[in-house]
Amino acid sequence: MNLNSALYTDLYQLAMGQAYFLKGKHKVSATFDYFFRKIPFEGGYVLFSGLEEVLDWLETVAFSEEDIAYLVAQGFNSDYIEYLKQFKFTGHIQSMDEGEVIFPFSPILTVTGSIIECQIIETFILNSLNFQSLIATKASRIRFIAGKDKSLAEFGLRRAQGFAGIQASRASYIGGFDYTSNVLAGKVFNIPVSGTMAHAYIQSYDDELTAFRDFAETRPVNCVLLVDTYDTLKRGVPNAIIVAKEMEARGEKLLGIRLDSGDLAYISKAARKQLDDAGLDYVKIAASNQLDEHVIRSLKEQEAQIDIYGVGTNLVVGKENAALDGVYKLCSFNDTPRIKISENLKKMNFPGKKQVYRYMNEDGLYIADAITLEHLDAPKSMAHPFETHKRMPIEYTSVRPLLHDVMRDGKRVRTKKPLSELIKIAEENLSKLPVEHKRFANPHVYKVGLSPELEQLRDQLKKDKLEA
Amino acid sequence: MNLNSALYTDLYQLAMGQAYFLKGKHKVSATFDYFFRKIPFEGGYVLFSGLEEVLDWLETVAFSEEDIAYLVAQGFNSDYIEYLKQFKFTGHIQSMDEGEVIFPFSPILTVTGSIIECQIIETFILNSLNFQSLIATKASRIRFIAGKDKSLAEFGLRRAQGFAGIQASRASYIGGFDYTSNVLAGKVFNIPVSGTMAHAYIQSYDDELTAFRDFAETRPVNCVLLVDTYDTLKRGVPNAIIVAKEMEARGEKLLGIRLDSGDLAYISKAARKQLDDAGLDYVKIAASNQLDEHVIRSLKEQEAQIDIYGVGTNLVVGKENAALDGVYKLCSFNDTPRIKISENLKKMNFPGKKQVYRYMNEDGLYIADAITLEHLDAPKSMAHPFETHKRMPIEYTSVRPLLHDVMRDGKRVRTKKPLSELIKIAEENLSKLPVEHKRFANPHVYKVGLSPELEQLRDQLKKDKLEA
Repeated sequence: MNLNSALYTDLYQLAMGQAYFLKGKHKVSATFDYFFRKIPFEGGYVLFSGLEEVLDWLETVAFSEEDIAYLVAQGFNSDYIEYLKQFKFTGHIQSMDEGEVIFPFSPILTVTGSIIECQIIETFILNSLNFQSLIATKASRIRFIAGKDKSLAEFGLRRAQGFAGIQASRASYIGGFDYTSNVLAGKVFNIPVSGTMAHAYIQSYDDELTAFRDFAETRPVNCVLLVDTYDTLKRGVPNAIIVAKEMEARGEKLLGIRLDSGDLAYISKAARKQLDDAGLDYVKIAASNQLDEHVIRSLKEQEAQIDIYGVGTNLVVGKENAALDGVYKLCSFNDTPRIKISENLKKMNFPGKKQVYRYMNEDGLYIADAITLEHLDAPKSMAHPFETHKRMPIEYTSVRPLLHDVMRDGKRVRTKKPLSELIKIAEENLSKLPVEHKRFANPHVYKVGLSPELEQLRDQLKKDKLEA
Repeated sequence: MNLNSALYTDLYQLAMGQAYFLKGKHKVSATFDYFFRKIPFEGGYVLFSGLEEVLDWLETVAFSEEDIAYLVAQGFNSDYIEYLKQFKFTGHIQSMDEGEVIFPFSPILTVTGSIIECQIIETFILNSLNFQSLIATKASRIRFIAGKDKSLAEFGLRRAQGFAGIQASRASYIGGFDYTSNVLAGKVFNIPVSGTMAHAYIQSYDDELTAFRDFAETRPVNCVLLVDTYDTLKRGVPNAIIVAKEMEARGEKLLGIRLDSGDLAYISKAARKQLDDAGLDYVKIAASNQLDEHVIRSLKEQEAQIDIYGVGTNLVVGKENAALDGVYKLCSFNDTPRIKISENLKKMNFPGKKQVYRYMNEDGLYIADAITLEHLDAPKSMAHPFETHKRMPIEYTSVRPLLHDVMRDGKRVRTKKPLSELIKIAEENLSKLPVEHKRFANPHVYKVGLSPELEQLRDQLKKDKLEA
């Protein structure tokens, strides 16, 4: 299956494209904003991810001959089909950095191009950014609560939503995980891979000790033994200790044991004591079994003795939300700002081409973002985006624009950032976000406001439309 | 990205494979069961999906030269690497039909092959079956409540979990949807595609009427107009009526209007009246906006006038669960039944190679499933799988085995079933499942039991392991 096909879209994009084309409007310039409305996980921020994948896709997206034949069979107009044969993305992308912390209603990425190309690429942009940002955010929450000294391994592929498992591993790594069990993602994205053993391996032997012994002999480095197949504390850990001592005699070191069931807090402390009493304080304890940020928080409160957390399902499907509600809205057409009217101010979009500024205090910590019109300087005061009577001056030490040119005329204007760099951007950003926005319960709402010029434009266009 | 790579697995499968290989155990025959423990959506059944994709993958899975180079760099043993170079799946698969209704704890699919190949393919099997069964189940619930006379369109690609959107469209179709908006899935799986228009299209015009008129002119067939950009009842529907009349004058018919916001029950009834009053009773009303089976149920209770339901996010990510908890457990090794011990009987597996029988009453309706050992006939009585004092005779009119040979020696033993056939299997199965298992609130628990022989084997092995 060719995932770089321009058919990776919704049919209505192609139907609208045909209308634009046949009415001669398809070359008119448009700008769309990608933004989201609701932070998932009842959290205080989203970690932006997926940009580099989107840019890769945009650089090569096309309709293959097979795709064109399919569209002909769907009855599209033959002149339009000729246009689609030569379709490629030739527009401009402005975007926040992948790894930036982002907030509701700010444009995160904007696309400027002919209206027809903007529409055809919409679905992939939403599909990619919504999912990867969801998972990177979840991963960052788990890293936040686990702390910097713990190892985090993602191993959700078996419960991931089909092929999304590959993207989930990438996003988890950007969000702060150290390893993935997903070998294909490890290879494609150069993510460190890790793995232990399954119960089936133990069961294939008549006894656990021989199973451990054979495994350790064939895996002298990074050997982790799963100790809960029969009885963790009475058999599993004692057998692991025997094997660890045999490894010591060969000049090797057992990396760890893994707990996958039972009361992880109680068992990890008891196992730690057994290991320490045997002089094996270097042997790490890995734990898994339906973990998420809330379970890990509870384990830490109970002083569980866990060095490595293995997280699967809840991470890779982004529970409890499973989707970020990002949207893609027209804000300018033919260089004229556009607005969608709704009784609900939150369902309206901010018109015109825009810039977002981020304000920092004297410690470099983030204090607010202001959305304004492009080419304007950072405003000194801002209005609440929906409660229009609320205005505030912005007191800050430094400010920086968040939207940068990343693609012009369909080509990247900077080299593709490797994952190692995206991780650094994410870490840096998360470190500058005050902790009150990172806590799990009722996180402090980060302030995002409108410049006076943008607020005035929005209100004017709304008035014009309602009076029309 | 090559999704048919054998690297589409967890690292521990390859680590265990190395241990088996270096210890000379890799050719020993093993059997694994795929089964799940918990029905999602608080429902009464799961609709099995994903089998044909798994068989496609198994027929072609291999390590490419690039994959092998990656594994060499990961430090795997060089003799083992030679083995992996020629790796292909050469085992047997028994499975229930794709489209079968399935229940917890029964083996749905079994793999018999060398232990090493059984392990390497585990992750893909789980990844594919867990996700597609989840989505097919969700889709079937929506079809159940919508009724047979409504059209159902899946259009979740923008909120789907990345590349999983392609698989979600396939599974939704098997579960009872009529259309997808996803053009790539439409092409790859031959699913009918449908699409309307976006708000951006309307906004790109100065006025809604001209936008509708242009669209209808370029799409004389299957034209659906989105009527809620400015004011649904005061502007959108009246403008659509004008255009519908113009289409009539050209000998064309407007297919429908689409509502995407507001109170769908109230607005659909008012819009229906406006259309009917204009003599447009043939114009259908499509509705979307965060629909799921519960919202559709409420809309029907309110007698909303909706002909076509468009369902996105909640369907394609399988809310509120987002994952099916399917597992893959060793039940036989070297032709000897194996068991995993746990304090929790539900966490133990059923040992040995097995068959599942389904019993029907005089109306052909499903009444119970019994799990027994392979080659045994259908039992006349069964035991509760976990409450061991509960036994029941089975009174039935007919019975059939559910596990069939689908792959021998790595090759399909029957031709690939087209989606059209899988849909029929699913419909047939769902029609034979009594409605008490399909209702949303506290569905009746479908009975799955163990034959006396299987119960005895499980209890004997458990006793042996605990006494060992």
